[in-house]
Amino acid sequence: MQDRLLPAQVGQFRWIDIVGLENDAEISKLAQDLGLSDLSIADLFHLDQRPHTDIDGDLVQTVLRMPVRNQPFTDQITLVLGQDFVLTLREQRRDCLDGVRKRLAGGKGRIRNSSEYLFYSLCDAVVESFFPVLEEQGDLIEALEERILHNPSDGAMRNIHMLKRDLLVLRHAIWPMRDALAILQRDDTPQINTDLLPYLRDCSDHAFQLLDMVEVYRETAQGLVDLQLSSLSNRMNEVMKVLTMIATIFIPMTFIAGLYGMNFDRASPYNLPELGWRFGYLYAIGLMVISAAVMLFTFWRLGWIFGRSGADPNAAPPDAD
Amino acid sequence: MQDRLLPAQVGQFRWIDIVGLENDAEISKLAQDLGLSDLSIADLFHLDQRPHTDIDGDLVQTVLRMPVRNQPFTDQITLVLGQDFVLTLREQRRDCLDGVRKRLAGGKGRIRNSSEYLFYSLCDAVVESFFPVLEEQGDLIEALEERILHNPSDGAMRNIHMLKRDLLVLRHAIWPMRDALAILQRDDTPQINTDLLPYLRDCSDHAFQLLDMVEVYRETAQGLVDLQLSSLSNRMNEVMKVLTMIATIFIPMTFIAGLYGMNFDRASPYNLPELGWRFGYLYAIGLMVISAAVMLFTFWRLGWIFGRSGADPNAAPPDAD
Amino acid sequence: MQDRLLPAQVGQFRWIDIVGLENDAEISKLAQDLGLSDLSIADLFHLDQRPHTDIDGDLVQTVLRMPVRNQPFTDQITLVLGQDFVLTLREQRRDCLDGVRKRLAGGKGRIRNSSEYLFYSLCDAVVESFFPVLEEQGDLIEALEERILHNPSDGAMRNIHMLKRDLLVLRHAIWPMRDALAILQRDDTPQINTDLLPYLRDCSDHAFQLLDMVEVYRETAQGLVDLQLSSLSNRMNEVMKVLTMIATIFIPMTFIAGLYGMNFDRASPYNLPELGWRFGYLYAIGLMVISAAVMLFTFWRLGWIFGRSGADPNAAPPDAD
Amino acid sequence: MQDRLLPAQVGQFRWIDIVGLENDAEISKLAQDLGLSDLSIADLFHLDQRPHTDIDGDLVQTVLRMPVRNQPFTDQITLVLGQDFVLTLREQRRDCLDGVRKRLAGGKGRIRNSSEYLFYSLCDAVVESFFPVLEEQGDLIEALEERILHNPSDGAMRNIHMLKRDLLVLRHAIWPMRDALAILQRDDTPQINTDLLPYLRDCSDHAFQLLDMVEVYRETAQGLVDLQLSSLSNRMNEVMKVLTMIATIFIPMTFIAGLYGMNFDRASPYNLPELGWRFGYLYAIGLMVISAAVMLFTFWRLGWIFGRSGADPNAAPPDAD
Amino acid sequence: MQDRLLPAQVGQFRWIDIVGLENDAEISKLAQDLGLSDLSIADLFHLDQRPHTDIDGDLVQTVLRMPVRNQPFTDQITLVLGQDFVLTLREQRRDCLDGVRKRLAGGKGRIRNSSEYLFYSLCDAVVESFFPVLEEQGDLIEALEERILHNPSDGAMRNIHMLKRDLLVLRHAIWPMRDALAILQRDDTPQINTDLLPYLRDCSDHAFQLLDMVEVYRETAQGLVDLQLSSLSNRMNEVMKVLTMIATIFIPMTFIAGLYGMNFDRASPYNLPELGWRFGYLYAIGLMVISAAVMLFTFWRLGWIFGRSGADPNAAPPDAD
Repeated sequence: MQDRLLPAQVGQFRWIDIVGLENDAEISKLAQDLGLSDLSIADLFHLDQRPHTDIDGDLVQTVLRMPVRNQPFTDQITLVLGQDFVLTLREQRRDCLDGVRKRLAGGKGRIRNSSEYLFYSLCDAVVESFFPVLEEQGDLIEALEERILHNPSDGAMRNIHMLKRDLLVLRHAIWPMRDALAILQRDDTPQINTDLLPYLRDCSDHAFQLLDMVEVYRETAQGLVDLQLSSLSNRMNEVMKVLTMIATIFIPMTFIAGLYGMNFDRASPYNLPELGWRFGYLYAIGLMVISAAVMLFTFWRLGWIFGRSGADPNAAPPDAD
Repeated sequence: MQDRLLPAQVGQFRWIDIVGLENDAEISKLAQDLGLSDLSIADLFHLDQRPHTDIDGDLVQTVLRMPVRNQPFTDQITLVLGQDFVLTLREQRRDCLDGVRKRLAGGKGRIRNSSEYLFYSLCDAVVESFFPVLEEQGDLIEALEERILHNPSDGAMRNIHMLKRDLLVLRHAIWPMRDALAILQRDDTPQINTDLLPYLRDCSDHAFQLLDMVEVYRETAQGLVDLQLSSLSNRMNEVMKVLTMIATIFIPMTFIAGLYGMNFDRASPYNLPELGWRFGYLYAIGLMVISAAVMLFTFWRLGWIFGRSGADPNAAPPDAD
Repeated sequence: MQDRLLPAQVGQFRWIDIVGLENDAEISKLAQDLGLSDLSIADLFHLDQRPHTDIDGDLVQTVLRMPVRNQPFTDQITLVLGQDFVLTLREQRRDCLDGVRKRLAGGKGRIRNSSEYLFYSLCDAVVESFFPVLEEQGDLIEALEERILHNPSDGAMRNIHMLKRDLLVLRHAIWPMRDALAILQRDDTPQINTDLLPYLRDCSDHAFQLLDMVEVYRETAQGLVDLQLSSLSNRMNEVMKVLTMIATIFIPMTFIAGLYGMNFDRASPYNLPELGWRFGYLYAIGLMVISAAVMLFTFWRLGWIFGRSGADPNAAPPDAD
Repeated sequence: MQDRLLPAQVGQFRWIDIVGLENDAEISKLAQDLGLSDLSIADLFHLDQRPHTDIDGDLVQTVLRMPVRNQPFTDQITLVLGQDFVLTLREQRRDCLDGVRKRLAGGKGRIRNSSEYLFYSLCDAVVESFFPVLEEQGDLIEALEERILHNPSDGAMRNIHMLKRDLLVLRHAIWPMRDALAILQRDDTPQINTDLLPYLRDCSDHAFQLLDMVEVYRETAQGLVDLQLSSLSNRMNEVMKVLTMIATIFIPMTFIAGLYGMNFDRASPYNLPELGWRFGYLYAIGLMVISAAVMLFTFWRLGWIFGRSGADPNAAPPDAD
Repeated sequence: MQDRLLPAQVGQFRWIDIVGLENDAEISKLAQDLGLSDLSIADLFHLDQRPHTDIDGDLVQTVLRMPVRNQPFTDQITLVLGQDFVLTLREQRRDCLDGVRKRLAGGKGRIRNSSEYLFYSLCDAVVESFFPVLEEQGDLIEALEERILHNPSDGAMRNIHMLKRDLLVLRHAIWPMRDALAILQRDDTPQINTDLLPYLRDCSDHAFQLLDMVEVYRETAQGLVDLQLSSLSNRMNEVMKVLTMIATIFIPMTFIAGLYGMNFDRASPYNLPELGWRFGYLYAIGLMVISAAVMLFTFWRLGWIFGRSGADPNAAPPDAD
């Protein structure tokens, strides 16, 4: 860790980037040397904090959260701004700061001359890192939409549920970032130079835009639930209709067959005279055909069959296919 | 682009209208010449921004969004107000500013004399352009309402879903416009003359009215989901009722036919004596008719058949047809 | 229109009541004479505005909306208060100002002496006119409640949908009236005398009460959707239960009949020996009765039949009938 | 009424308790004598007002609402505080002020010495009277919960609907009481002594707690709707499963019986040879038993039968019974 | 109780910890000795209060609520901060203050030197005690999720309902704690030293984080309801499909069997000639096989069977299993 500390020194200020919280004694000592208060130091070791900014004397301590691709959780990153240093601390090696590192390596511009600008750049990089993750969620929503409309299966609901959970996690990472960024822009935060305000406002705008996206996606995901339930109902309706139709067509036919399968004593002329008719069989089959035709006609009139393509072609939505 | 620049000069100020962001170097240079800061220039090239107003020194930079007919997205338009120019920038050629152009071509009135008034007119044209789009959505909702009530099919749900998505897009384009317009009306925005305030307030009123319309449509669209689910349930109820009735009427009749189709040894007088009756067949048919009549009477009593038109005529809603 | 103008003069101020917007030139001229600004005059001709109050120099211009009985929309009325006149403007002849006219005709009291008090009285009349309309909606909700509980048909859902739409329209007419009335009560509205404030506060209280009623009705209407869906589900459950019971009772009986209708060669003693039994028929019927009894007993144990009145009489709600 | 007026005199101030609004002339005269303004007097006769506090010169006029047990509405009570009197006015004889009367009758303490303290005590008594009513609603919710889980019938939904309506009424009686009480605590209400503030704050706390309870109950009631719909779906699922199982088991068996009931000419050795087999009947019964066993095994594998108690005993919720 | 009082004395201040409210006279007397006002003392004996902070002269009285594991309610704890004492009062022996006791027993640090710091530590211990309870709820949600996806039974809905109720209880215990803690941080609360503010802000941050967790869990639990209803619908769909398929396949086959079971007089050559065919039986079985094959093919084309794994393998979600 100390190895990382020295080469990070740039001009008049240093960027101290700590990965992993195992060496807590060492980290505590370093933080104490940098001037953090006891409470701020204790805060460094609490993961799962919501984003917030604390003013700790001359220091500004901001906790943000970084999205982790394809995972239903976010990583915490703590940024501390001092007059001659910027401290970043996180548990996992993965981060979203490569862009900042490249610009630092590029070696010119404001980012190498001002600790505050570096601090802003790091915050902005964290905020910006949510965009690709959210766009992935947007693609997922569209894929789910298609899938529900064509194949409303149990898995779709499961995926919607997971999508909603992920969006909820993102929302709770983004929502308090607005406050954390707003505190940096307040008049009573003298640690931040006023000529950085337009940049921080721009960063806040991005956070607002992220929230907008999350809200749109959340509402759309909730709409997918309705779509899914409606699709399932619709599917059931279709299954029921087919069952009803087949059963209903054959039930009277089977009854007629059963009728002429009775064994009443043919000695009496009143018992089942049809059985003795010359064309009794054809008569029975005729009865069956008529009963089936009546049923089919009734279903057609009720709009249960041929209704989609034939009954009301004008009602078909132009964009439904 | 420069070709467009010269003829746009009108009186003491120019309207510079840039379409397309490909010539980024040229646009950046022009913007720099007009006095925009680096951050504002960078902002020009970010599409997908939410509407907002930035005060950039003497300049006012407003990002708004224009609806695109029949598309689930909105176009971005950036307006910059300077003392002797108005700059508009957008990626797509389509816009909603023809009315302003006509009034400019008409050649008299305040719009040719004041860059601020032109700026307001452009903002107002953008806001007003949402009205016809929303009215179309209103017509669509009414058409969907009719369709769901008469033919609740899968397509309807899909259309509701798309309608809700479109309304969500419109809402997120309109909602932050209120803030963008409010900043123009603030006391600490000296770039805007106070005698323009009533006009801007009028423009804000329109934005509020748009939001009201969107909210009404969104709630109505959500109501359509309930209507659709209820219609599907109702449709299923009817299908089930028909199946139940036909099956239930024929099941006992078929049983009776099966009963007298049994082959018990007629030598025993206790076995199937009905088969030997003179009027056994008529007796069996009588049994069947009675069982069907009992079933039909029971269904009628339960209100399952003839219930709509006959059972409770007073309960029929006067405005349901 | 001018004919109406002269007799409206009362004491030191006039009430100018304009119906219809066709004579726009005449109306514009009159408004100009009364001192309205161009923007305010343009506003007079915009229908479909949301209620709001504009301070236009010495004048107060308030746009309100009046309910129209049995219609899913509201009429707009524009009120302008000047020092020596009150102007009301609307497109339709119908209004809710007869009470004010009667009090004016009665000829005494503050209403004839103060243009501000007349202005207040007109606003109050508009606000009060929502009460009978909302009470009608309340009666409609109760009627729908009864109907859903006794006959959950498709029409009920349609009526709930219409009810919700009407309540939404009323809400969006009433909600911004609060702001319109609040502006009249602000300190920086010197056109309104301070001794009118208690009256305006009373009027605001009524607007709040209207909103409360609308919210209660809206929530109740949404509850009706749940009630309707639950009733449909319940109805379906009952239909399914009956189908299940009848089918399930007869299916084993029909099977037994089919079994003894088989034609196995009776020469073998192992083939269908029951057919030769002396009491084989009674045995078969006995089998059928037992299978039916077993089924009925099972259904009774599952609580599917006789469950409502017999199974758990204590669970019957005391107030459900 | 006047009879009631005299004995109410206590120390330096009087409590005037008026029941019924029929003698409006008398009440108006009394109110005028006590110093109420015309608007305040008119307000006395408006029932169905939402709770609010008006400052009328030296007087404080508070309108509150009292719950009525087992009724879906609330009674209005108007309290007027003057320097030497407290006026209470309501239409119905029933009230919730017996506790205050007892303490007054007890005859000592602050309640007999200060009109303001009596005024507070009356307000507090009204607020406190909501607690037992809400606790009853809580008991009702628990009873409904039990009932839905054990017997989801149509009546349950009706009761939930009524419960929600009652809670809505209570909410709209309690919600504005907070404002009415807050105005009493404001600095610009000199009619209330500052040493009464802790008491009024305590009273406000109770109102907040009532609102909390109402919100918890409302959310729980809404959850009951979901529970009810889910229970109905579940019940339907079970009914369907039983129907499916019985029908599916018997359908192949009945088919086999029908198969061997056919009358093909046995002269041909290829027609129904099974009928001539020595153990043909047993073979047929064997076929039937096998088909039923296959079906039952399939259902068991799909988890449709014996699934609850047998398939996954670990998944059974420990607290579900 | 007095026994507990003496050993609690630490340095210049005492921690008085009272368990049980039975000895109300003794507690009242003690509270009076400590300087509590009558209203504050009365408050000590009200259980079921919502968290709040009252400033009572020199004293600060905070009511908080402690979670009770596996119970749908919370315990009340009242904390009073005086200059030389901290009073804690609760009805139940169980509490969450063992950590504080250990640190006190440890015997060094700020907690033994400052009554305010002890007061803060006690508040913080109460706030922190919600974390393990909420984490348990989170585990429960995940278990429920799994269970619903694999076995959507009635019990799941019951458990969701209980989960939602528990979360509601926690929410209403946590939500007002923010206000109670905010009052401690206000400028006009001189009883709290300013150097304690960072600690109290940290404590507030934890309360906010708890609320975030509760909201996430509440939304997820609501999502579980949708998941459950969708799973039930889906399950029903599957049951219906199986019923439909089996019934539909056998219905035509049974009809054919019935057809050739009719007893028409074979003397006429037009009656049932198939019965006399040499391969009539095979012909009939062929008819049956063909009808079943046609049905199965139709179902396969409709995607009802083999649809999951075979019809559209690309649509299968990669993470659904």
